[in-house]
Amino acid sequence: FKNGLSLEDASGTWKLGINGRVQADYRSFSPDVAAADTFNIRRARLGVNVGLKDFAARLEGEYGGTSGNGSVGLTYAHMDYIHFNGFKLRAGQFKPSYGLERSMNANFTDFQERGSTDYLLGATFDRGIMAYGEPIAGLFYSASWTNGKGVNTASANGDETDAKYDNKDALIRVVGNIAQFAGWKDSVVHIGGFYAKGEQEPGSSPTLNVQTEGRGAIVFSTEEGFAKAVDRSRQGYELALAHGPVKLQAEHITEHFDGNGFNRDLTAWYASINWLVTGETFASTYKDGMFGRLRPKQEFAWGGDGWGALQLGARYSKFDGSDFLTTNAIGTGRLKAFESNEFDTWTLGANWILTPYVRLIANYVHTSFDTPITVKAIHHEDAITMRAQVDF
Amino acid sequence: FKNGLSLEDASGTWKLGINGRVQADYRSFSPDVAAADTFNIRRARLGVNVGLKDFAARLEGEYGGTSGNGSVGLTYAHMDYIHFNGFKLRAGQFKPSYGLERSMNANFTDFQERGSTDYLLGATFDRGIMAYGEPIAGLFYSASWTNGKGVNTASANGDETDAKYDNKDALIRVVGNIAQFAGWKDSVVHIGGFYAKGEQEPGSSPTLNVQTEGRGAIVFSTEEGFAKAVDRSRQGYELALAHGPVKLQAEHITEHFDGNGFNRDLTAWYASINWLVTGETFASTYKDGMFGRLRPKQEFAWGGDGWGALQLGARYSKFDGSDFLTTNAIGTGRLKAFESNEFDTWTLGANWILTPYVRLIANYVHTSFDTPITVKAIHHEDAITMRAQVDF
Amino acid sequence: FKNGLSLEDASGTWKLGINGRVQADYRSFSPDVAAADTFNIRRARLGVNVGLKDFAARLEGEYGGTSGNGSVGLTYAHMDYIHFNGFKLRAGQFKPSYGLERSMNANFTDFQERGSTDYLLGATFDRGIMAYGEPIAGLFYSASWTNGKGVNTASANGDETDAKYDNKDALIRVVGNIAQFAGWKDSVVHIGGFYAKGEQEPGSSPTLNVQTEGRGAIVFSTEEGFAKAVDRSRQGYELALAHGPVKLQAEHITEHFDGNGFNRDLTAWYASINWLVTGETFASTYKDGMFGRLRPKQEFAWGGDGWGALQLGARYSKFDGSDFLTTNAIGTGRLKAFESNEFDTWTLGANWILTPYVRLIANYVHTSFDTPITVKAIHHEDAITMRAQVDF
Repeated sequence: FKNGLSLEDASGTWKLGINGRVQADYRSFSPDVAAADTFNIRRARLGVNVGLKDFAARLEGEYGGTSGNGSVGLTYAHMDYIHFNGFKLRAGQFKPSYGLERSMNANFTDFQERGSTDYLLGATFDRGIMAYGEPIAGLFYSASWTNGKGVNTASANGDETDAKYDNKDALIRVVGNIAQFAGWKDSVVHIGGFYAKGEQEPGSSPTLNVQTEGRGAIVFSTEEGFAKAVDRSRQGYELALAHGPVKLQAEHITEHFDGNGFNRDLTAWYASINWLVTGETFASTYKDGMFGRLRPKQEFAWGGDGWGALQLGARYSKFDGSDFLTTNAIGTGRLKAFESNEFDTWTLGANWILTPYVRLIANYVHTSFDTPITVKAIHHEDAITMRAQVDF
Repeated sequence: FKNGLSLEDASGTWKLGINGRVQADYRSFSPDVAAADTFNIRRARLGVNVGLKDFAARLEGEYGGTSGNGSVGLTYAHMDYIHFNGFKLRAGQFKPSYGLERSMNANFTDFQERGSTDYLLGATFDRGIMAYGEPIAGLFYSASWTNGKGVNTASANGDETDAKYDNKDALIRVVGNIAQFAGWKDSVVHIGGFYAKGEQEPGSSPTLNVQTEGRGAIVFSTEEGFAKAVDRSRQGYELALAHGPVKLQAEHITEHFDGNGFNRDLTAWYASINWLVTGETFASTYKDGMFGRLRPKQEFAWGGDGWGALQLGARYSKFDGSDFLTTNAIGTGRLKAFESNEFDTWTLGANWILTPYVRLIANYVHTSFDTPITVKAIHHEDAITMRAQVDF
Repeated sequence: FKNGLSLEDASGTWKLGINGRVQADYRSFSPDVAAADTFNIRRARLGVNVGLKDFAARLEGEYGGTSGNGSVGLTYAHMDYIHFNGFKLRAGQFKPSYGLERSMNANFTDFQERGSTDYLLGATFDRGIMAYGEPIAGLFYSASWTNGKGVNTASANGDETDAKYDNKDALIRVVGNIAQFAGWKDSVVHIGGFYAKGEQEPGSSPTLNVQTEGRGAIVFSTEEGFAKAVDRSRQGYELALAHGPVKLQAEHITEHFDGNGFNRDLTAWYASINWLVTGETFASTYKDGMFGRLRPKQEFAWGGDGWGALQLGARYSKFDGSDFLTTNAIGTGRLKAFESNEFDTWTLGANWILTPYVRLIANYVHTSFDTPITVKAIHHEDAITMRAQVDF
């Protein structure tokens, strides 16, 4: 019963962990014609993980769903065989490893929301099987074969109906921490990439409705789905350089649709810098090929010495969907009228990490639309977003 | 691991409580043209609360939802800072403190259902921030600033879409227990009130569909929502006098809509008397400005001495929506045809509290409709309702 | 904290068990025009059971719902009084005891899916009250009175609206284990039956959409619901003979609709044989009138001696809905065009039970349609289905 909520029986056969998180957000926009100034439960999750010697299972529900009017959905539901550290197996519903930021726990990302790169990666959770592991210390891989349809949307459980056009998605990601190979202390030199291939069925959308990184206006979507089945590939490169309290991080992701007589690319990338003002190191949070929970040098205590940790950061991101035009033929990826196929975003962020399990976040997000969303007569969006978060 | 299901780690850093409730109801009506004689899961909830020194979090799901066809929803999802007893802070989704009966845990209300007053208070759970505490022993306050739209309904998560007409709701409630100030033993003299102010957007309904207190016929609703935005204020007064095993309790609540060229009031009140036949005192259950869990003098045990506690009570309530007429202009609060804008209700209730965590409830509810619901040709409704309840 | 995840407090007053399961399936069909080759979360459940001396409660959510697009629903939510072993009482939402295979925990059925007999038994979970027990060692009964409408479907929570045509369902099931009476070791001679009576309201469907046992094509459904209320009765006979590692099991179930001027029967039965290759006995799993968790003689451990248990089996089943014809009058149970009113199924199955809590399943399911589903030009369906399962 330590390091979070986990219990073990006397014989060591069973381990039970209870996990949860509450992310209580406030968002405010200017101009605010496009989105609400609102309180929101961004994520409210509760689940368990169970260990039975070489087997493990995880099951978690998301109670803060915003699509579907507050409905509850399933996030993780998988079973693992973890006997070999270099070759672990997973079956069920899980998060395929599409790049660094997507793979990271949303409790520990540097900014309140992931970059616009995340919209190119499809649904977060998917159903299938995965092999993963750390065959050499500092080298991590994951290979999965999944439905490629996610879960908790109308098409998600199309898996119980006819889906003969929908092939499975194959994904492989390999990353390494060169600092670990070289034995550089207090540093991370994370480098890697992924490649995924699948097919989308007729009628399927090129992408989710793309919102600004402040979760305000919907910037990019298409008038209709693809008329015929298209081949889809995704690839990404990721780089993170951390030394002591400073981290540089960047990702570049491309999604390519190869249709009947047309090709369409979506490209997005971000670069960010973060500084742990209170002197903790990013290397101390690096594990399993990603950055995780930070433990402040001194936890916050009223009237005591500790004030927790403070992280400041900035991120620039660029979304390019310029292959998608309003003049494209119907069913080949036609930009929706009055939306934009390019935008870039500046984010300034502060994380006040009071204890390893409690943090307050404030972000300023400025988005510039390349093709103005003329119907609403806005060329940019400024957002102030805040979050109170507890996770266990 | 006592007083319910709660666990603590050796170092005292973490506390985990697992909470749940099952309320299995049966309802039967006469005349029964208007509602089903049915078994129902009124509430089925499961959640956790976590304490981390000065921080606390609560997360709970409702599995017994009746709207939305048995869908599961989120009730509590909040994070608290509880260092100062007189000034605690809460962020997330919670129950704003609209009066005494609404604030009380539904496991411990005197009757199976709250009075018709409850329909004037909008959605039970809302999203925002709250300050609350007990600055002086016996004086309790709560002030919240919330979306004012609730959760788990179509409009609830409108918070992710355009909501520029919808201002936030501000609420303050102050109550005191004069018996505590005066040092009167075994007594409660609870007195207080609340005031709340917000705005409703065009198309929003004046109130939920008002059912009888037996959850039978829908008595009061409007033909359509408000055509334009309206200002809404709510206020309530509450009084509870308990001495030994007897309690008198009353509340008066008004909801006021200030529209463009019209004003509409909804008013409701109730008064009730309850008697703990087995001699426990209501004062022993009073905590945090409300009445809570009762511990029988002797718990029920087959073949043993104990039979648990028995509480008997009666309540009269009156609902007045007489500003809402079928002849009002469209979009200004027009009573639905064949429904009623006034009704009163007599409830006789018995609670058999077998153990602090198990109770059986039986209620007789007689409702008289002032304007008969003529399409169904009924002037009154008699309901017998029963509940088997366990909570932990 | 043993035999699964269960905790007890020092005084023995409270017991808490945390239950869950993950069933990660893969299904593949030939011809595959009728259903997807897909990964699926068949069941993902999480819940608790609580014991308070003579009282008990259970609450569980299903997170892997496939209807309703991944929505979460309530399975068990009931409260029990268990003082008398021969006369226990239950109120809330639970699974009425319709025969042997339906009563068994889906984690422990012999094959990946129950037989087509299961479609004649309506919704799995229902709301009401039940008496049950084991008055004589080896004799088990259950009698329930429920809504008869299930839960988590559109009509399920019709229980909050008008349901005056819908009478309650009364069910009684009695089974005995003659081997237990006779003192035959390592054997089970399970014999019994059930009878249930209810009424269906106008517009209600004769049965759920009947899929093949491989969860592929929908074979049998009706063009529309019954035009008027019909009386419905169900009855079933069950037999299971086990000696050592071999078990023969069979059930025969009839559902009878008595309408205004017509009678319609649905009949289905199955017979199966199973062999525990590794030598465990089925008698060791028999409890409470059904077969339950198997404990392998040696648990699976990589590089160790143990390989777990292996169970092989075969099942034949027959579904007969030949009273339902495309030429029947509208509203009297009219077979849907291009579907079939008779089919039989052969299933070959293997269960690899690695530990008491982890199993892998593979099934081959061959279905022959008597009246071919001509629109899709198929006369049979071959399915290969697999499951990775953990439960606790």
